[in-house]
Amino acid sequence: MRIDVLTLFPEMCEGVFSTSILGKAREKGIVSLNAVNFRDFSGNKHNSVDDTPYGGGGGMVLKPDPIYNAVEHVLGITPNEEDNRRSDEEVSVKPRIILMCPQGKTYNQKIAEELAQEQHLIFICGHYEGYDERIREHLVTDELSMGDYVLTGGELPALTVIDSLVRLQPGALGNETSAISDSFSTGLLEYPHYTRPAEFRGWKVPDILLSGHHANIDIWRREQALLRTLERRPDLLETAELTMKDKKTLERLRNVDKPE
Amino acid sequence: MRIDVLTLFPEMCEGVFSTSILGKAREKGIVSLNAVNFRDFSGNKHNSVDDTPYGGGGGMVLKPDPIYNAVEHVLGITPNEEDNRRSDEEVSVKPRIILMCPQGKTYNQKIAEELAQEQHLIFICGHYEGYDERIREHLVTDELSMGDYVLTGGELPALTVIDSLVRLQPGALGNETSAISDSFSTGLLEYPHYTRPAEFRGWKVPDILLSGHHANIDIWRREQALLRTLERRPDLLETAELTMKDKKTLERLRNVDKPE
Repeated sequence: MRIDVLTLFPEMCEGVFSTSILGKAREKGIVSLNAVNFRDFSGNKHNSVDDTPYGGGGGMVLKPDPIYNAVEHVLGITPNEEDNRRSDEEVSVKPRIILMCPQGKTYNQKIAEELAQEQHLIFICGHYEGYDERIREHLVTDELSMGDYVLTGGELPALTVIDSLVRLQPGALGNETSAISDSFSTGLLEYPHYTRPAEFRGWKVPDILLSGHHANIDIWRREQALLRTLERRPDLLETAELTMKDKKTLERLRNVDKPE
Repeated sequence: MRIDVLTLFPEMCEGVFSTSILGKAREKGIVSLNAVNFRDFSGNKHNSVDDTPYGGGGGMVLKPDPIYNAVEHVLGITPNEEDNRRSDEEVSVKPRIILMCPQGKTYNQKIAEELAQEQHLIFICGHYEGYDERIREHLVTDELSMGDYVLTGGELPALTVIDSLVRLQPGALGNETSAISDSFSTGLLEYPHYTRPAEFRGWKVPDILLSGHHANIDIWRREQALLRTLERRPDLLETAELTMKDKKTLERLRNVDKPE
């Protein structure tokens, strides 16, 4: 898998690319991660990548040329200085090209699993500018949003998406991790975890977890997961896979007066 | 404003803290940003920060001690080796302590605006482990989730939240940016932006934007923002502030057969 991130701040990406799971996956050759500064492809002597918007108004808009040039560089298409205009056919051999923007589809684990199958992804990250609409219309294949909040740039969202994709690659996680963090694979929120010490500052681990009775522990954990999901994210219960027993447990939990 | 990030990978944070808006805000003294490696506060000679879960099962769980010790270090509370147990009163002079986890409240711009008012925030970032429940119950004030997807750690979510908070601090953005990126401040998605060249690879800027007729441009932009929101995020229309004219425009747009 190859991932290229088009950004004006490659140094934001490098620290993340070389650390932890991403760094290890890169070392093992599972993924190739590259930050490309699209200012290097401005195509003008002032290296400008943005300009004022047509029609007036404040702010700056990312020009189409540097982004198209940078994508073509990444794809190994030699730019023709004489005839800068290309047909759609010429750029048709393209990977998924992803624009991080608030107008995009809200990212979730289903999209992660889909993108994790791709061989080559290119992320375009703007930085407090708007994007020229022709980038969105003719170059980009996917627009993704991380949620309803405003950021100064697309880098952190792109890095977040990349982290979620790379950990799904075979061999990326190794033995050091496990399903413990895979909240969304069961469709429920996780049950509470406890580790040593059994008593910490007066707060004890629940007796059941020290009992050694694994069948009872499993029942307790499932009930805690259902309870937490019911309290915090009841929407998840609509899509979670629930057994008949789960449904009975939920009915009981719904009828209990919650202790204060 | 002071922000401390408790992490096992401080190097992931440093590249982001020193770049772009965050780097400038830090230089200007608007915000103090610190990454704290909680392995330095393990309190044991093997520097271990996690352990197997009580009750069995795979994966590792972050121990309470290193996190409590690191928070107390950040707060300037001297740990007492003889009596490691504290009353709730002693730790009551505490800032917002935020745990990044999938079980948390889904982050949005409203939470950003609320947290941006605080003077001191501490983020706790686990890394593919679970958290001992006593961290959640007795230390943490807020649990935040970035969305329904699985990541290898809390660092990227924490950095994302921090980016969204720091840009709201007075003086952080300077003149280089503007309301152009503030999608969520109008309650609608943005209208399309265009900049030079007027024709790029055969694709032209809409005539209206070159007309110089600002009243018409404003009408066109508002309609485009409504159209895009209607197509992509109709849920936002329920909370957006709409004029009578907007409502009429929407009614018309809903009745138009969309061109293929």
